[in-house]
Amino acid sequence: MATLVVLGSGIMATALATPFTDNGHTVRLVGTHLDREIIDSIQKTGIHPNLQLKVPEGTEAYQLEDADKAFEGVDLVMSGVNSFGVEWAGEQLAGLLRPGMHVMALAKGLRADDEGNLEILPNVLANQLPEELRKQVTFSAIAGPSIAGEVAVHRHTCVTFTGKDQQVLDMWKELFETDYYHVWTSTDFMGIELMAATKNCYAFGAGFMHGTLKRLQDEKVAGWDSPYVNYNYGAAIFGQASIEMQEWLQLLECDPQTVMGIAGIGDCFVTSMGGRNVKVGTLVGEGMTFSEAKAKMPGVTLEGATCIVVVGKALKALTERGVVPAEKFPLLRHLYEVVGEDQAVDVPWKKFFGTHGDGR
Amino acid sequence: MATLVVLGSGIMATALATPFTDNGHTVRLVGTHLDREIIDSIQKTGIHPNLQLKVPEGTEAYQLEDADKAFEGVDLVMSGVNSFGVEWAGEQLAGLLRPGMHVMALAKGLRADDEGNLEILPNVLANQLPEELRKQVTFSAIAGPSIAGEVAVHRHTCVTFTGKDQQVLDMWKELFETDYYHVWTSTDFMGIELMAATKNCYAFGAGFMHGTLKRLQDEKVAGWDSPYVNYNYGAAIFGQASIEMQEWLQLLECDPQTVMGIAGIGDCFVTSMGGRNVKVGTLVGEGMTFSEAKAKMPGVTLEGATCIVVVGKALKALTERGVVPAEKFPLLRHLYEVVGEDQAVDVPWKKFFGTHGDGR
Repeated sequence: MATLVVLGSGIMATALATPFTDNGHTVRLVGTHLDREIIDSIQKTGIHPNLQLKVPEGTEAYQLEDADKAFEGVDLVMSGVNSFGVEWAGEQLAGLLRPGMHVMALAKGLRADDEGNLEILPNVLANQLPEELRKQVTFSAIAGPSIAGEVAVHRHTCVTFTGKDQQVLDMWKELFETDYYHVWTSTDFMGIELMAATKNCYAFGAGFMHGTLKRLQDEKVAGWDSPYVNYNYGAAIFGQASIEMQEWLQLLECDPQTVMGIAGIGDCFVTSMGGRNVKVGTLVGEGMTFSEAKAKMPGVTLEGATCIVVVGKALKALTERGVVPAEKFPLLRHLYEVVGEDQAVDVPWKKFFGTHGDGR
Repeated sequence: MATLVVLGSGIMATALATPFTDNGHTVRLVGTHLDREIIDSIQKTGIHPNLQLKVPEGTEAYQLEDADKAFEGVDLVMSGVNSFGVEWAGEQLAGLLRPGMHVMALAKGLRADDEGNLEILPNVLANQLPEELRKQVTFSAIAGPSIAGEVAVHRHTCVTFTGKDQQVLDMWKELFETDYYHVWTSTDFMGIELMAATKNCYAFGAGFMHGTLKRLQDEKVAGWDSPYVNYNYGAAIFGQASIEMQEWLQLLECDPQTVMGIAGIGDCFVTSMGGRNVKVGTLVGEGMTFSEAKAKMPGVTLEGATCIVVVGKALKALTERGVVPAEKFPLLRHLYEVVGEDQAVDVPWKKFFGTHGDGR
């Protein structure tokens, strides 16, 4: 039986202990400096306070200062920190990893340089390691529609494990797969991670349909009192998102088919159904600026909004350099106007969908 | 200014009077024999009883016996009947159409022969006309995410007009497009109609996530009392639906890109958000057989369920003939088991998504 050590004890990292321990394996959760109370709670009561659930049998919890002990005798590692902590996690792992170990990364997001070159987070993580060590460790990642709490209570969940090495992916799949946690594998590492990151951007836009509806009801715009909602609006946003997600794949020379199925459209669907991203998108749809909406949600990490700023700035740079035509990515550009420049929501419908409704 | 005569006065046909009359044109709604009370109500009060709204200025209503009068001096025709009435509508139009007229069809669905050859409804409609007349009339269709009531109250809606003749599509677009009703055009007539029909099948499956959740709460399955729902489940169904919708396009030699954007993924999104299809899918997810669920909704037309039977039977025939491999379309095959054979919901997750999570 295997042991997995997890750096970070957020809800997703902890939820994945459920399928892993269901297969008879053991998990060692190592809290970050921000997770002190979580680890305390698990050590004392077995309860993860944010997940509101008891962690499964076979899960041990360690404070950060005991990380060395948690890493003893283990060669499977998960980086469970969120997108804001990837560099920190990489620095920690630089001191904890040994040659031959396998790392699975959970954070979704992108980094970009001033020229608009985008980098996926597993690479950002790996780049914190000394080059010699980096070559002797494998990096993989999990993508796909998985609300953490659902995984933790055995709800059917379909995900993609991605990385460059098919054998390593097969090993991870074997360790995690159960009769409710269904795993596929893809070696389009950059493509899958692009989907995982950009879907968070577009889900922010899914909030607009709710917010716009509330605003026209508040303002008693003609028809406001009809029983009808705003799904046509949301469907158009979702449809354009699917097109732009495929265009990201094409732009970065990934496989355009990666948008189909689990990691692209499936994940965008679940992310558009709710969560913090959609919530703040809703507030902005109601008429607040993004800055005002954000101030209403103090202490809440908004990975989607952060990713919009990264990708929106990259798009500007790529357009200035002539790499991307100005008419491409109208939805992402508008999301950046809203989030990065505090502009009002004013969806550029007529710029959507190319000529034929399918992006061309 | 133009005049459009509409055969059928259901909610979608009537809702489309809103953008058309907003452009200064006139609409003549002709009720079918089933629409007598609707036409009565519009004639007396201006209210469409099912839409619960006043029809817009510039809309006139006619009983079926006055169809000849309604068709006088008009060359734009819409067939607004639903998928069950297409043959009937074609027979009526055979006596009402004249050479040079343009027909726009709204019904979504498919017909199949015993060998599994699928036919789109605008062709079924056209085939009711004498061959000589048929050649002198154009047929187009509207697809894309549009809940009728939302169109009727000016909510943003993006649709695709499809047909074989780009000039005719441009004419229709010019007549209908407004600042809230956004129109794209595609000449992949069969592909767009395939999307419009199959998305109704897959939306039925979207109900399973709600029903399955309710069942496990009712049965107090471990974790039933957690705050978590079943979105991972729904996202996987939606992701597999997107893959199968693209495979339908490939099978019938349509453009695989047609699944992207408005008419495929966008429309599947809005249809999966609610409606009769999802409702009955929910009941089946709770544990009823389809026959039991249907009996709970007397008088309700279930176009999605009907389409599942047509397409499911066609799939069987196509598989027997060796045209489609048995491992393709696992979701549609299961939907047919549920709807056509009254079997219990038991989603074949492991058959989904090909090897890499994207259908391949």
